Amino acid sequence: MNRGLSPADPDFERRTRASFAKQGAMAHLGASLERVEAGRVEIRLPFRPELSQQHGFFHAGIVSTIADTAGGYAGFTLFPADAGVLTVEFKINLLAAADGERAIAVGEVIRSGRTLTVCRLDAWVERQGRRTHCATGMQTLMRLVGRAGVKD
Amino acid sequence: MNRGLSPADPDFERRTRASFAKQGAMAHLGASLERVEAGRVEIRLPFRPELSQQHGFFHAGIVSTIADTAGGYAGFTLFPADAGVLTVEFKINLLAAADGERAIAVGEVIRSGRTLTVCRLDAWVERQGRRTHCATGMQTLMRLVGRAGVKD
Amino acid sequence: MNRGLSPADPDFERRTRASFAKQGAMAHLGASLERVEAGRVEIRLPFRPELSQQHGFFHAGIVSTIADTAGGYAGFTLFPADAGVLTVEFKINLLAAADGERAIAVGEVIRSGRTLTVCRLDAWVERQGRRTHCATGMQTLMRLVGRAGVKD
Amino acid sequence: MNRGLSPADPDFERRTRASFAKQGAMAHLGASLERVEAGRVEIRLPFRPELSQQHGFFHAGIVSTIADTAGGYAGFTLFPADAGVLTVEFKINLLAAADGERAIAVGEVIRSGRTLTVCRLDAWVERQGRRTHCATGMQTLMRLVGRAGVKD
Repeated sequence: MNRGLSPADPDFERRTRASFAKQGAMAHLGASLERVEAGRVEIRLPFRPELSQQHGFFHAGIVSTIADTAGGYAGFTLFPADAGVLTVEFKINLLAAADGERAIAVGEVIRSGRTLTVCRLDAWVERQGRRTHCATGMQTLMRLVGRAGVKD
Repeated sequence: MNRGLSPADPDFERRTRASFAKQGAMAHLGASLERVEAGRVEIRLPFRPELSQQHGFFHAGIVSTIADTAGGYAGFTLFPADAGVLTVEFKINLLAAADGERAIAVGEVIRSGRTLTVCRLDAWVERQGRRTHCATGMQTLMRLVGRAGVKD
Repeated sequence: MNRGLSPADPDFERRTRASFAKQGAMAHLGASLERVEAGRVEIRLPFRPELSQQHGFFHAGIVSTIADTAGGYAGFTLFPADAGVLTVEFKINLLAAADGERAIAVGEVIRSGRTLTVCRLDAWVERQGRRTHCATGMQTLMRLVGRAGVKD
Repeated sequence: MNRGLSPADPDFERRTRASFAKQGAMAHLGASLERVEAGRVEIRLPFRPELSQQHGFFHAGIVSTIADTAGGYAGFTLFPADAGVLTVEFKINLLAAADGERAIAVGEVIRSGRTLTVCRLDAWVERQGRRTHCATGMQTLMRLVGRAGVKD
C-alpha cells in the first residue's frame, strides 16, 4: 500500500521515535510506538479505566488520537530531516465497540506529495487473543519544510 | 442552529452529566462539562503537558476527543431517557495550532433523526484572553433505543 | 476486503442493475455499471468535455459522483430484496488530477451492519493504457428495510 | 462567517465567472453561478430527470458536485490573480432527500491560509417555495501559486 515510497532521510526511524517521545499525550495515555517503517507506523495502547467512555470500552476519541498519531508519523518517516508534520484533517468511522485489553492503530501513507500526504488509518482492538477491526479512516498531512524545530 | 429541537426527556441535563461522569477518559484528561443545553454541549479542558504533541501544544487527537464527546452528548440531550448514543463517524479540520491555556469544544445538533443525528463540532483555544478557532468538524451519531444500559 | 460477506438476496446482481438503470444521472454522465459482485461494484465513465472542470480534466465532483454510486450499490448487493439504500455521508481525497480517457470507480464494503454499512471508495483514471489512482474515500450507507419502493 | 476576508484581486468576480464558464460539467448539469462574493459563492441547479437517482430526486453526487464547485470558487475569490485552485478533499453529510425543483449550493471560506483554504459547504433543495437543508460539508482547497494557466 505504501507503494515503495522511499524515505528522504535514512535515519527516519530514530527521528520518528525521538519526536514521539516528546508527545506528552502519548505518555499520559500509555501509548507506545511499535513498528516504524517507511510510510507505515504502528502504535499500541493497553486498556485502563482512564481511557474509557461511559461503559468501560476505549473512548472513540482516544482510539482516534492514536490513529491520528500513527498516520502523522507514517507521513513523517518519508520527510526530509528538517521537515515537520501537521495534521490538516482526518475522518474516522467507528466500526465496532473498542472493547478489549489493547488497541492497535496503524497509519499508512497512500500518497506522498511535495506539500500534502494522504494516509489511511486503521485501528483494531484485541480481546482474549482475537482482533476486531474497530475503526478506519483517512488523514491529510502537511509537510512543513525547514520547520522541524517548530513542528516536528 | 439547533432548530428549536426539543428534548424527549425533560431531565436531559442530569442524565447527560451522569453519563459524562462515567467517562474515565474525560477525568484522565481533566475535561469538564460546562453548558448542557438541548442540542448543544460545551466541554472545557485546561492545558497541561500531559495533553501535548511534540511542541507543547494541545495534541490534535485530544482536541478531537473533547469535540467528539461534546457532539455525542449534544445528540444525547435530545434522546429519550432509555436511549444510548454511539459515534458512527466524525471528521475534523485542524484550522490552527492549539496553543493556549485552555481548549473549548462545542457540539451542536444540525439534524436529529429517528436513527441518526448529525452534529457540527467546533473547538477553540484560549491564550491570554484571546480565542482562536482551532478545529471544525462534523459527526454522525446513532441512537440506540432501549439500550441505555449498554451504550448511554 | 469484503470479508466473505454473503448477499441476503441471491438475485442481487439483477436487482442492482435494475436500480442503476433508473438513475437518470448515470445515463446523463454516460456511466456504465461494470462488475457487480457481492459487496463490490465497479463503474466506468468515458471522458467527454461535458464532464470537465476548467482545464479539461474530469471534474472532481463527477469522479465523486461515480464513486458514491459505486459504494451505494456495493452496499445494496448485500441487502435483502425489499431494502433500499441511502448515502448518509461520504468523504473523498483527490489524489491526482483526473486527466485521462476513462475514469473507473470501485466501491467495496468494509462493514455491513444491520442498519449501517461502511464502504471504501476508490477511483482511477486511465490515460494511454496507464492507470492513476486519482481518489480515495469512505462512505456510510443506511439500509432502509421494507422501503425498496421508496429508496432502492 | 468569512471573517472579513479580503480578496487579493479586486477583479475576483470576473475572474471567477470566467473560470466557471470553462467547466463543461457545470453546463452539462445546467448549473449557474449566482452570487459571487469575497469568500462566498452560490450555485443554482434546476431539477431535471437527467440529474436523478433511482427515485427521481437529485442524485447525492450531483448535489455534492455543485457544493464542491461552490466551495472551490469561494476559495478562488480570495486568491491572487495568478493562482489556481485544487480540491484536496471534501466530506459531505446528506441530511434529507433532495426532492425539489431546484438545488442551491453555497461554499463559504472558514479559513484562508497561504497554502490551504478550508470551506464550509451547504446545500438546500427548494420545493414549492420551501427550502430544505439537504447537505452540509467541509472542504480543503490548495492554492497553486503562479499556476492560473494550469489550474485556475
